[in-house]
Amino acid sequence: MLESYACGTWFSASDEGEPLLDATTGEEVARISATGLDLAAMTAHAREVGGPALRSLTFHERSAALKAMAKMLGEHKDELYALSARTGATARDSMVDIDGGIGTVFSMASKGTRELPNDVVVLDGQPERLGREGTFLGQHLYTSRPGVAVQINAFNFPVWGMLEKLAPAFIAGLPTIVKPASQTAYVTEAVVRRIIESDLLPEGSLQLLCGSPAGLLDELGAQDSVAFTGSAATAAHLRQHPSVLHGGVRLGVEADSLNCSILGTDVGVDDPELELFVKGVVTEMTVKAGQKCTAIRRVLVPEPMADVVVEAISQRLAKITVGNPTSDGVRMGALASLAQRDEVRKAVQALRASAEIVFGNPDVVDVVDADAETGAFMSPVLLRAHPGASEPHDIEPFGPVATVITYTDLDDAVRLAARGQGSLAGSIVSHDPAVARALTLGLAPWHGRLLVLDRTSAAESTGHGSPLPVLVHGGPGRAGGGEELGGVRAVLHHMQRSAIQGSPDMLSAISGQWITGSARTETPVHPFRKSLAELAVGDTISTSTRTVTLADIEHFAEFTGDTFYAHTDEAAAQKNPLFGGIVAHGYLVVSLAAGLFVDPDPGPVLANFGVDRLRFLTPVKAGDTIQVTLTVKQITPRTNADYGEVRWDATVVNGSGEPVATYDVLTLVAKQ
Amino acid sequence: MLESYACGTWFSASDEGEPLLDATTGEEVARISATGLDLAAMTAHAREVGGPALRSLTFHERSAALKAMAKMLGEHKDELYALSARTGATARDSMVDIDGGIGTVFSMASKGTRELPNDVVVLDGQPERLGREGTFLGQHLYTSRPGVAVQINAFNFPVWGMLEKLAPAFIAGLPTIVKPASQTAYVTEAVVRRIIESDLLPEGSLQLLCGSPAGLLDELGAQDSVAFTGSAATAAHLRQHPSVLHGGVRLGVEADSLNCSILGTDVGVDDPELELFVKGVVTEMTVKAGQKCTAIRRVLVPEPMADVVVEAISQRLAKITVGNPTSDGVRMGALASLAQRDEVRKAVQALRASAEIVFGNPDVVDVVDADAETGAFMSPVLLRAHPGASEPHDIEPFGPVATVITYTDLDDAVRLAARGQGSLAGSIVSHDPAVARALTLGLAPWHGRLLVLDRTSAAESTGHGSPLPVLVHGGPGRAGGGEELGGVRAVLHHMQRSAIQGSPDMLSAISGQWITGSARTETPVHPFRKSLAELAVGDTISTSTRTVTLADIEHFAEFTGDTFYAHTDEAAAQKNPLFGGIVAHGYLVVSLAAGLFVDPDPGPVLANFGVDRLRFLTPVKAGDTIQVTLTVKQITPRTNADYGEVRWDATVVNGSGEPVATYDVLTLVAKQ
Repeated sequence: MLESYACGTWFSASDEGEPLLDATTGEEVARISATGLDLAAMTAHAREVGGPALRSLTFHERSAALKAMAKMLGEHKDELYALSARTGATARDSMVDIDGGIGTVFSMASKGTRELPNDVVVLDGQPERLGREGTFLGQHLYTSRPGVAVQINAFNFPVWGMLEKLAPAFIAGLPTIVKPASQTAYVTEAVVRRIIESDLLPEGSLQLLCGSPAGLLDELGAQDSVAFTGSAATAAHLRQHPSVLHGGVRLGVEADSLNCSILGTDVGVDDPELELFVKGVVTEMTVKAGQKCTAIRRVLVPEPMADVVVEAISQRLAKITVGNPTSDGVRMGALASLAQRDEVRKAVQALRASAEIVFGNPDVVDVVDADAETGAFMSPVLLRAHPGASEPHDIEPFGPVATVITYTDLDDAVRLAARGQGSLAGSIVSHDPAVARALTLGLAPWHGRLLVLDRTSAAESTGHGSPLPVLVHGGPGRAGGGEELGGVRAVLHHMQRSAIQGSPDMLSAISGQWITGSARTETPVHPFRKSLAELAVGDTISTSTRTVTLADIEHFAEFTGDTFYAHTDEAAAQKNPLFGGIVAHGYLVVSLAAGLFVDPDPGPVLANFGVDRLRFLTPVKAGDTIQVTLTVKQITPRTNADYGEVRWDATVVNGSGEPVATYDVLTLVAKQ
Repeated sequence: MLESYACGTWFSASDEGEPLLDATTGEEVARISATGLDLAAMTAHAREVGGPALRSLTFHERSAALKAMAKMLGEHKDELYALSARTGATARDSMVDIDGGIGTVFSMASKGTRELPNDVVVLDGQPERLGREGTFLGQHLYTSRPGVAVQINAFNFPVWGMLEKLAPAFIAGLPTIVKPASQTAYVTEAVVRRIIESDLLPEGSLQLLCGSPAGLLDELGAQDSVAFTGSAATAAHLRQHPSVLHGGVRLGVEADSLNCSILGTDVGVDDPELELFVKGVVTEMTVKAGQKCTAIRRVLVPEPMADVVVEAISQRLAKITVGNPTSDGVRMGALASLAQRDEVRKAVQALRASAEIVFGNPDVVDVVDADAETGAFMSPVLLRAHPGASEPHDIEPFGPVATVITYTDLDDAVRLAARGQGSLAGSIVSHDPAVARALTLGLAPWHGRLLVLDRTSAAESTGHGSPLPVLVHGGPGRAGGGEELGGVRAVLHHMQRSAIQGSPDMLSAISGQWITGSARTETPVHPFRKSLAELAVGDTISTSTRTVTLADIEHFAEFTGDTFYAHTDEAAAQKNPLFGGIVAHGYLVVSLAAGLFVDPDPGPVLANFGVDRLRFLTPVKAGDTIQVTLTVKQITPRTNADYGEVRWDATVVNGSGEPVATYDVLTLVAKQ
C-alpha cells in the first residue's frame, strides 16, 4: 500500500485500496488509497508549519535547500529508474522524467540564486514618481502568500511533473501538497520518501497525497493555488469548484493539446531540414509511447511534399522496436495501462472519419520480450488527413499517433495550426528566416513555446517536446491557459504582486532596498572601508568636487582616442542640436566620478564588476564642477562565498545641483 | 434611445427599451436596448477589420492615436460633466471619472511610447542559452492576439472604467467591444460618439454595446478576453460560461472588496497622521457617495484610539452637505439609483447584527436643492463593530458606509484585514517605518495596492481610493484575482507570451532585434556614418586593437584620481582574490573601447545618452590588447522627433578573444 506523507508522518490507509499494475506484465506493483486521510489537517499543517518555516528563509536559502535535494535525488536514480520501467517507460523515457526532473530543480535553484535577491521580497520594476516633489512614489513588490500550493499531476511524468511544480513554489515560499496520478504514483512516492528521509526541506513544506483528493479543494482559499496537469475535461470540472468560482483559489491548468510541427515551404527533398523534420515527428510519436502533452499530433506539410514526408516517417517508424522497456534494443515501451491503450484506439478510430492510416495498425503490434495481450503495447500509427478534415484538429490520441495534414501557403499553415485552439508547443522546420518569421509571428499567439529548427540549431536543439526549466511551459486556450517554468517567472507566478505607495523612506524601509529620494546616511567611515556585515542600505559617501576643464576633455580625447567632434571641435559641437558646444565625454564623467568616490586602500571592496542603467542627463561643459553621491542601494550576500554584491546608487551632479549622470555601480565586497 | 456602435454604424433598437433615470430628479434621461443587435457580426467585425488595422500599427503609432484621442476628449469635458451630474455625481466625482479617465489614456500612451519598442512585438527578458556552443537559444516574446477584448463595466465610472480598459487593449493590438452598465451608459455612449466622430482610432478597434450582452460570450474563444468589473456574484456567473470553462476565453475580474484602512499603533492624538487617517476615511466614504470598489469599508484602529477616531470621523461627516450634485456647497450627491440605495440600506441593516451605528441614519437625510424621496440620497453612516464581529468583514455596503473595528496589536490587524479575503486597496497610516513595514508585508499578499500615508507623503498623496495608471489595479480573492493598469504591465496582460527557440540568426529575424550570437554585417561604411533610415539591425564595426600599457593604467589613475590599489599597487593587487596583480580600471577599458569604435566627424550619431548592463568579465592586465565589436541591436525611431534611439551591442575582447566587457551603448541617431 502506497503511503501518504501528511502532517509530518507517513499515513497508510486501512482499506484495501485500488491495485496499480505493471504496464508491461500486468502484475500488481502497489495498491493506492487515501481513505481516512485528514485533508483539512494537511492544509493546516502546510499553512501553519511548512509556510512559516519556508518564509523564514531567503530565496537563496530556499534555492540552496532545493539544490541539495536535487543532488540527493541524483544518488537514488537507480531505484527510480527501476520503478519507472514498471510504468512502461524505456530507459530513455525515464531519463526525460527522472534526470529531467532533477535537472529542472537544479536550474530553478540556480535561477533563484542568480536572479532573485537574497531576501524575502522581490521588487518589480523601478519606482514610479507619483508627484512633482518626489515625496510620494509607487513601487511594485512581490510578496509570498501565506497559503498552500496543491499540485495535481498527470500519470506520464511522475517525477518531473512533481519536481517542476515543487521547485518554483518552494522558492516562492509556498508549501506544497503533491497529488500524483494514481497509475504511476509509486514512482512519485519513492521520490517524496527520499526527500523526507533526507530532511533537507523544512517540515511541512512538502506533503504527499496518494489516492483520491476528493474534498481537498474545499479546504482551499484566496491565498492557495492549484496547479493541474491533465485533461481539458477535468480542468473544466476544477474550474467549477466553489473554491475556484467564489473562494479565490488560483487555478493553473496545463492540458494536453493538439501540437503541430510545420515543415517550411522552403524545404526541399535535398535539404537537411527534411530529415530533421521527419526525425522530430518520429521522436515525438515514440518517446513515452507518445504519452506527452507536448507531443506532435499534427504534421503540417506543404502539399507537394506530403508523399515524401509520409514515406520518410513511415520508413523510420518501421525501425521502432516495441516491447519490454528494460530489454536491449527496445525503442518504445508500453502505454501506461490497458485502459489507456483502449482510449488511444478509440481516438484513432474517430480520426479515421477524415483520415486514413498510412502506417501501423492500432490493434496489432509485434513486441519483444513481452506479452502483447497483458502489456499495454501499441504500434505507432501515422494517418494522412483528407482535404478539409476536422477531426485531426479536435481529437487527441494520447499515444504514438500523428496525422499528416497538407497546407497550401503560409497563411493556410497558420490557419490550420490555429484550429488546434491553443497548444503547449509547436515547431517550425525551416532554414529561411522569412518563412520562420511569418510562421512564428502567426503561431505565437496560439502557443506557449515554439521551436524553430534548422541545420544551424539542430546539433544543440532540445527538440519539439521538451519543456525547459528556463522557458515558460503552458499554452492558451485548449492547452489550459496556464504558465509554468520560465526561470524566475515561475516563482513570481506563485507570489502576489502589489503596488506599494508611500514616501521614499517608507518604501525603502518596506522593501529593504534604498529607493531614490529616501534618506542617505553619511557615515564617518568611508563605506568602502566597511565589510558586507557592517554596511547598511542607505550608507552614503558625498564626495568633494572636481572642475572639468577643457584641458581635461582634450586630454581625455587624445588619450583614449575618442575624438568625437562634440568633444574636440567647438564649431562643429555648436551645431549639435543636443549640446551646442563642446561637452565632456560621458566616459570621462564616470571616470572622474570614480576618482572622486573610490577609497584607494585595500579593504573589503574587492572589485567593481559592472554598471547598470547609466544615463547621461545633462551635458557637462568645460568649467563645470561635478560631485558624486554614492549610496548603498542593495546588499546581496552570496550564500557560498565569503563576499557578496553591493549595488550602489551613483548620482553625479553639476555645480547647479542638476544630475548629469545616474547609474548603479556593482561591487563585490568581502563579508568580513 | 441610446445607440450602439456596431460594425461601423450606429444601431438603434426598435423596441421601447428600459428607461434610465436621473439619480437626483428621477426624470428619464434615456432608454436602453440592444434588441436586434448582431453580436456575432460585432465580434467578426472586431476580428476581421479592427484587429488587422490595429496590428498594422506599431506600439508607438497606437500610443500616438490614443494620445490624440485623449486630447480630443479633453475638449468635450463640459458635455461629459453635464451628463455625469445626472448620475448623481458632484463635480469632484465627475473629475475622478472624466479627468481620471482621460489622464489614464495619456499615461498609457506615454508609457507605450517610452517603454515599448516602436515595433509590434515585445521581447521579455534576455535570451537564454540552451546549449554549450550558443547555436540554440530561447527568447521570450510577446505577440498580439488575433482576438477581441470585451469589457463589461460597472455603473460607477462610466468614463474611466471604459478608458482604463480600452487604452492597454488598444496598445496591445486588440480591438475592444465596450459594454457599459445600463444605469450610466448614456455617459459612456457620449464618449464613444465623440471618439467615433473624431475618426482618430481605426474602424473596428472600438465598438459599443448599449443594452443586454446576452449571447456575447458565446461568440468568444481562445484569443479573446473579457474584462469584468462588478459584483463577485456576476463574476462567478461569468466564470461558469462554457466559453470560459471550455473555450479558453481569458476572464479578468475586478470585484468590489472590503477594503481597509489601518491606523498605525504609533499614531497618537497629537500626530498629524491622525487627521490624515480621519480625512482619508471621510473622503472615501463620501466621494461618489461611497460607490467605489476601492472605498474604505473597514476602519481598523488600535483599541485605545477607537473613541477618538469615531468622534473625529463623526465630526467631519457632520459637515458633509448632501444634495443636488450641481448645487454649490454640496459635497455628496445621490447614489446611482433608488434600487442602489435600497441595497445599501439592506447592507447596513445586516451590519447592525454585530455593529452599532455611531453616525448617521440610513433612512433619514437632509438634502439641498433636491427631493429626498425622488432622488437616491442617503446620509453617510458610520458603524462601530462589536468585539469579534464577522459581518463587517463579509458584507459590503456599496455606498457611504464604513465600520470602525478595533485591533489589539499588529498581528491582529493583519489577521483582521485578511478576513476581507482579498482586497483591491488598503491603506496604512503610520509614521513609524517598522510599523509600516510589518503591516505592509503582512497585508501585501491580500492586496493589489497598498497606500502608506504619513506626514511626509501626505501633500502629494493621491489617496486610498484612487487607482493610478502606472500602478496595478486589482486584488486577490474576493477582489476578483485580476490585474489591470500598471503601465506596460497592462498592455502585456493582453498579449501572449511565448518562448521561441532557435538559432541566434532565426531569433534575430523573428524578433527584429539583434540577438547575441547571430550574424554581424560588417559594412564598408562605418555605421556611425549611417542615418537611422540607413542603419540595419546587425550592422557592425569591428575595430582595430589597442594594447593597454602599465603606463596607461598609471596615467588613468593619476588623471581621474581613481587610485584604487588594484590599479596602482602591485603588491596589494597581488593579494586581491579576483585579480592577483594590477588590472586596468573598468572605466579605462570602456573609455579606450569608445576611442576604438567612435567615428569622430559630425554625422547622424548625435549623442551617447547611456549604457546598459555593463559587465566586466575578465580583468585586463598591463600588456593586454583589446578590441571592440559594436553591432546595431535595436533601432527605435521616435514618432515625434527627427531622430531615434539606436541600441548597440558592445563586446570588448582581449588578445585571446575572451570577452573582457559587454554592454549596450545607447545613442541618438538622426533619421536623415
